[in-house]
Amino acid sequence: MSIKGYPKSMLKLVAELSKLPSVGHKSAARLAYSLLLSEKIDARTLASAILNAKENIKLCSKCFHLSEEEFCDLCLNTSRDASLVCVVDKPADVLALEASGVFSGYYHVLHGLWSPLRGVSPDKIKLRELFNRVREDSQVKEILVATPTTVEGDATALFISQELEGDNLTVTRIAQGLPKGGELEYADVMTLSYAISGRKAI
Amino acid sequence: MSIKGYPKSMLKLVAELSKLPSVGHKSAARLAYSLLLSEKIDARTLASAILNAKENIKLCSKCFHLSEEEFCDLCLNTSRDASLVCVVDKPADVLALEASGVFSGYYHVLHGLWSPLRGVSPDKIKLRELFNRVREDSQVKEILVATPTTVEGDATALFISQELEGDNLTVTRIAQGLPKGGELEYADVMTLSYAISGRKAI
Repeated sequence: MSIKGYPKSMLKLVAELSKLPSVGHKSAARLAYSLLLSEKIDARTLASAILNAKENIKLCSKCFHLSEEEFCDLCLNTSRDASLVCVVDKPADVLALEASGVFSGYYHVLHGLWSPLRGVSPDKIKLRELFNRVREDSQVKEILVATPTTVEGDATALFISQELEGDNLTVTRIAQGLPKGGELEYADVMTLSYAISGRKAI
Repeated sequence: MSIKGYPKSMLKLVAELSKLPSVGHKSAARLAYSLLLSEKIDARTLASAILNAKENIKLCSKCFHLSEEEFCDLCLNTSRDASLVCVVDKPADVLALEASGVFSGYYHVLHGLWSPLRGVSPDKIKLRELFNRVREDSQVKEILVATPTTVEGDATALFISQELEGDNLTVTRIAQGLPKGGELEYADVMTLSYAISGRKAI
């Protein structure tokens, strides 16, 4: 669909919106239209929320989670388990784990995964910072790599375990197998293979 | 997913973004994350594009298409067919028709469809403005109702034709039938019914 029939300031807005992830030209035009004319949305409030977030949010100097201060609330919480550091891809993963309440250690957000195909080398993500941090902090005993169970997530996990091989640290990987409620019938071969090889005594 | 683990200004941004159509909490969080950290997106440019569009864009006083001036470029173009007014739901529909190049008359954008179920009464959309416009302008001979071929689009079309019954105007509806490349096998009953009843001599 051409968007030539729109006024200039609309075209500019559509162009900016379509830079957002998974927003194509048509979605961007729909978003722009709502922004301008919907009664539910106040465009000025959104614009100021964007500017305000951009100004105030930085990355925690320790774990690289989003934070408004030098250190995030999670890192400042001294009641967590200091022997355990969980490595994740992105801030949303921290939230998912926090919401589940199943993890009580500290986090480290990589902001990406090692991906030669996409041109993401190890120095483009927060790996060096991870290695420095866990080597300098003698309390850390275990690095739990909770990157996604994809090719890139697995490669990143392998990279971390190889890099830390000489250090006196345990590197672990989140368990893989059938998800809760999973039917064997619909599971893929890799999942079944992990489910069998990782079997446990009841 | 809870988003409690995010800083305040991030929560505010996610809340504002999730007011956009078809953007849920998870998508909003992903959009916010890209806005803050992606190298491809300049959050300040987007914010100013929003403010600029909000400030400059209004509706054309004649056809209600988006415009930065009192009248839009389409209405100001005197070389179009003044006897024909095409009624559409939203500005994007004007663009779709303009891109196709199959229509040379003027437009009228309703900004909605008559929908009792969603609480949209005829006075909430630009219907009164349509009736006044076509009655005042003696050049107009035909109203082509190009609202979507949905229940609401059809109801709006019927409403228009009934309202203009006494006037010396032809009200037409866009043709319904099989889309180009359509397989009979996969067509629904209504589409097939229109395709048969609307058949034409070759």
